[in-house]
Amino acid sequence: MNYLEKFRVKPGSIVRLDKIDPSFKDKHEDHAAALDEIERYTKRLRELQYLLYAEDRRSLLIILQAMDAGGKDGTINHVLGNMNPQGARVYGFKVPSAEEAAHDFLWRIHQAAPPRGQVAIFNRSHYEDVLVTRVHDLVPKKVWARRYELINDFENNLVANGTHILKFYLHIGKDEQLRRFKQRLDDPARHWKISESDYSEREYWDDYTRAFEDALSNCSTDQAPWYVIPANHKWFRNLAVSRIVVETLEALRMEFPPPKVDIGEITARYHAAAAEAAPTGGGKGKNGSR
Amino acid sequence: MNYLEKFRVKPGSIVRLDKIDPSFKDKHEDHAAALDEIERYTKRLRELQYLLYAEDRRSLLIILQAMDAGGKDGTINHVLGNMNPQGARVYGFKVPSAEEAAHDFLWRIHQAAPPRGQVAIFNRSHYEDVLVTRVHDLVPKKVWARRYELINDFENNLVANGTHILKFYLHIGKDEQLRRFKQRLDDPARHWKISESDYSEREYWDDYTRAFEDALSNCSTDQAPWYVIPANHKWFRNLAVSRIVVETLEALRMEFPPPKVDIGEITARYHAAAAEAAPTGGGKGKNGSR
Repeated sequence: MNYLEKFRVKPGSIVRLDKIDPSFKDKHEDHAAALDEIERYTKRLRELQYLLYAEDRRSLLIILQAMDAGGKDGTINHVLGNMNPQGARVYGFKVPSAEEAAHDFLWRIHQAAPPRGQVAIFNRSHYEDVLVTRVHDLVPKKVWARRYELINDFENNLVANGTHILKFYLHIGKDEQLRRFKQRLDDPARHWKISESDYSEREYWDDYTRAFEDALSNCSTDQAPWYVIPANHKWFRNLAVSRIVVETLEALRMEFPPPKVDIGEITARYHAAAAEAAPTGGGKGKNGSR
Repeated sequence: MNYLEKFRVKPGSIVRLDKIDPSFKDKHEDHAAALDEIERYTKRLRELQYLLYAEDRRSLLIILQAMDAGGKDGTINHVLGNMNPQGARVYGFKVPSAEEAAHDFLWRIHQAAPPRGQVAIFNRSHYEDVLVTRVHDLVPKKVWARRYELINDFENNLVANGTHILKFYLHIGKDEQLRRFKQRLDDPARHWKISESDYSEREYWDDYTRAFEDALSNCSTDQAPWYVIPANHKWFRNLAVSRIVVETLEALRMEFPPPKVDIGEITARYHAAAAEAAPTGGGKGKNGSR
């Protein structure tokens, strides 16, 4: 099964989330049965990220959106936490600061765009400005309705500069959300994270669903596609996201850049230095570095 | 053995790097013998970082400095790559950009200081401005000589705001550096990283040593100590750094913050939602989330 095809929102199509099974798990019986595949993609992801970093030509932007308890934090930890931290940064977008709110809604987002060679992971994003903003009438409809086009133009500019954009909607069911709220209540070490809004926002489930559907339908483009990831099973969500990232990066056919120096000349310099360090031969010291 | 004591540069003392064995490995015969301890500290580090993040009151700044091939990248990968990426960022400081160079030397550093709840890891830092700058006479002596005090004042301000600062000098021998250069030459996948300066800077080894000794001696303070980490053995370096970070964080006696909400009231809301979701009882859905 081609995950890039399977989970991508086809540009121009109309998304109906209730037609997409959040409990889908492909051919895998359970987590244990998928462990080998998860491990393989996790490892390959790390290799490809290192190539992206070494190549220093392109960048990758991963956007995560979901309902509350949809698994954004978990996805970041399990899938993306495996990357080299020197080449990856996570950005969370919460209520805008006074300075951020004094600018257009894309201003703070643009500042967090990944430079060449780097991966940026957005935990929430500019899409909040057509989600929470719309559901709670924070701006008039004519303002948020224009944003889909502004977002597409903005993302188009990033892509034109060599940024590859992957957008994941982590799709859970309403009953699964409730089960996860219960798990938080059952674990005292997680009580500090519980907020009033968990339950109050749940009352807007249908409004959010509609807002997500419109964002996915209007902003899944050839250059910056949305993927709807079945996320009731955390392990399948992790597998699907890392597989899509891997397959996207594989398609770039990246290679290590050529040496910046003449390796033959540097080798000669090494031998000169080694001869100086140990005139009696070999450059062997007594302290191994393993 | 108390690593915080053992490797700390005592404030006011004069550091002589040639008196410190870069191949020290404590009681451990080799890497294999230390694996359990490494694993234990790595795991504990992750737990403590999560507490720092949850507590959201203090921050941690880790500064890494070393000779070329001293192991800064390796330390970041193996020790700090295990942290939750949402609570940790790595900053590399290379040759200043035009905008950075138009400001004082601490300006770009200050922007990367970790906010509450976060860890920042500096791969090189403001100390370059008393190292490479001094060795290559990029500014007059009277300029760099004043910087030790400016650095202490700057770090003091961060500490006053709740940032804990740990500074690690990764100490390798000159022969170990050469051995690592050889490993790079032997591995084609690493040729892209080799630069002319590897060998040209090596000629300034003694000058760098003196510059490091002065930085360590002048800027190891009670509030922001330097640690000299024996780093010829990569595994021991990783162990020592994670142990010192763990022991520093343990001393903060952090606890999860109290809930922001009334857990009893939220539990009642959960039961109301569960009853609504499944009126026939129990709130059980058919899709598990494991």
